[in-house]
Amino acid sequence: MRHYQIHVTAKKGIFDPAGTTAQHALENLGYDGVRGVKIGKLIELAADDSVTADEVAQMCARLLANPVIEDFDIKEA
Amino acid sequence: MRHYQIHVTAKKGIFDPAGTTAQHALENLGYDGVRGVKIGKLIELAADDSVTADEVAQMCARLLANPVIEDFDIKEA
Repeated sequence: MRHYQIHVTAKKGIFDPAGTTAQHALENLGYDGVRGVKIGKLIELAADDSVTADEVAQMCARLLANPVIEDFDIKEA
Repeated sequence: MRHYQIHVTAKKGIFDPAGTTAQHALENLGYDGVRGVKIGKLIELAADDSVTADEVAQMCARLLANPVIEDFDIKEA
């Protein structure tokens, strides 16, 4: 069994409303040292040994991420 | 400036409908080697040097995660 860990993040310049909201909420709670919050997706994928990282990249491009607005980064864990 | 990377994942036994849906969708696309998909949050937090990992853990417990149903893991990047 292979375990892949995928980070999906908004591309540079793409608005991240969840991150902006979280940052303001942290400031309102008194955490005034916070300079930026970005919220993306963490995908943990377990697959048979026959599934390669290239195939996982294809899954990301087709379904798990939106390549128009998101970047993805795949690591085998 | 410090950069923290936070992984927020559903606790063991907590239903993850997004992950289950993604897994079924991958099977429907023909990726039959996929054995499990879990979808959580990836939070990237930039903060002043004065902000410690303990303080970030407090932010997670209070706002960024739901400790009742989610685990979080903080790494300084």
